[in-house]
Parts: sequence; structure tokens; C-alpha cells
Amino acid sequence: MERNVRVGIGVIIVRDGKLLLGKRRGAHFAGHYSFPGGHQDFLESWEDCGLRETEEECGPSFVIRIRNQGRPIFVTNDPMPEYDKHYVTVFLVADYVEGLPVNAEPDKCDGWDWYTFDEAEELTSAPWIPWDLMELHREEIGV
Amino acid sequence: MERNVRVGIGVIIVRDGKLLLGKRRGAHFAGHYSFPGGHQDFLESWEDCGLRETEEECGPSFVIRIRNQGRPIFVTNDPMPEYDKHYVTVFLVADYVEGLPVNAEPDKCDGWDWYTFDEAEELTSAPWIPWDLMELHREEIGV
Repeated sequence: MERNVRVGIGVIIVRDGKLLLGKRRGAHFAGHYSFPGGHQDFLESWEDCGLRETEEECGPSFVIRIRNQGRPIFVTNDPMPEYDKHYVTVFLVADYVEGLPVNAEPDKCDGWDWYTFDEAEELTSAPWIPWDLMELHREEIGV
Repeated sequence: MERNVRVGIGVIIVRDGKLLLGKRRGAHFAGHYSFPGGHQDFLESWEDCGLRETEEECGPSFVIRIRNQGRPIFVTNDPMPEYDKHYVTVFLVADYVEGLPVNAEPDKCDGWDWYTFDEAEELTSAPWIPWDLMELHREEIGV
């Protein structure tokens, strides 16, 4: 089978200078912390994808606003030959608006919580979270 | 059949303040001008992809150097429902080093030439070339 690069979206959600992360379960890198996100659908915009994935994973009453009309803050290339996967991940930044993030996909996540940048960096995070780029854009993200 | 977003690379090659563009033929948007580029292969780095596509399209004696270790200058989301295609395109910037760009894939391109930014903007270019972002990064690109 021909293997293609897939496009993923990561949503960096900010509330009072903290980041929303959840511990993955079930899929690759179970036990690692990651932002809400997932595959970009065919013909989907980045903003719609980020809102859809966040709603699927954190529930419909958790409301965010994606910054900058869905323009990414950075994008990463993540070949994962050991998992026979390869993602290009587009990172968006969003601000918290209202509601609580519930664990809407308990087969995929152990639950969501807010972490300071320093706390988040100390977690065992998924390898596609680019802490070097996060650090570089820390002021712009506001964490 | 499930349709996935594909990842493309566009290589913005600069020589003496001019951009390398070729007129497409055969595929979608034949007759439109575009940068060298194409699909990112599974497990491939962006730098390797940009060098490979440029060599395939412009010949092995045309040498470029990709800037910034292959970090993109910008990335675009291009759903094309009228063609049943959807690309996320990663744009790299490269500097000309030596050699002449030959038309190495004459079934796909009418030939390559160098254009100033103003000349390039006046051409009928492929719709995935983001002239607004090109303009925004014009100084950094150096054209």
C-alpha cells in the first residue's frame, strides 16, 4: 500500500497563561501528554478542523476562539518510521472563552488539565510537540 | 474511496532578486506558472523533498541551497473541490548556487525562467501561490 504523509492539527489552547493538555490513551504514544487535535479532513479549513477536534475531544460546552483566522503559529514535520506513520502537524493557537473541557473521548484520553509552560515542559509529552518552537514563540502564545 | 489531504512542497528559489517559475502543463492548472515542487514522500524531510523535486524538474546540474535547515517560510491550506484535490503546501526558500535550470520534465512544464517579484505577480500563476504571504515576506525572501 502506498503510504502518504497525513496532515494533523494541534490546538494550543491558552487560559490565564496556562496550556490545555491531556494524557493520551489507546493510540500511538499512549501515556504521553498532547494538545487537542487530530487529522485534518478533506476540504476542511484549519480553523474548522481545530474547532471540530477540540469539540470532539473536550465536549461542545467547552468554547475556544482560534486566533489569527486559523493561520498556524508553526508547522512541523514528524516522520515516525517506528510506527509506520508520518505527520505534518499544523499548530494553531486559541484562547479559552467559556465552559469546562470534559473528557469526551475517554477511550483516547485520560482527561484534560491546565499547565503552566514550565509544568507542561516537565510532562512526558508526545514527541510531535515542538518545545523548541514553543519556547521561541512563548511570548506570542502568551504562556 | 477515502480522500486525504496531501502534503506538497513549493520551493521559492531566489537568484539576484528574481524568482524561478515554470509554466505547468499536463496536470491541474496547466498554463499557470508555479515554483518547482511536488508531493512530500512518506518519511521524507522537507529539505530533501525540496532538493529532490527541484532536481527532478530542473535537472541535476542546477544546484540550490535551501535556507533555514528546511524550516518553511509559510504554509498554506488549499482545498480544491473543483479538482477533487486538497493540498497543504509547505513553502521553502532556497538560494541559487550554480548551473542552469533545464526543463527535465517536459510533459509537466514548458520550461523555467527567472522573474522579478513584480513580473511574477503579473503572470497567471497557480492559485496555490499565496501572493499575500509572498508580499508579507518579500524582504525576508529578498525579491
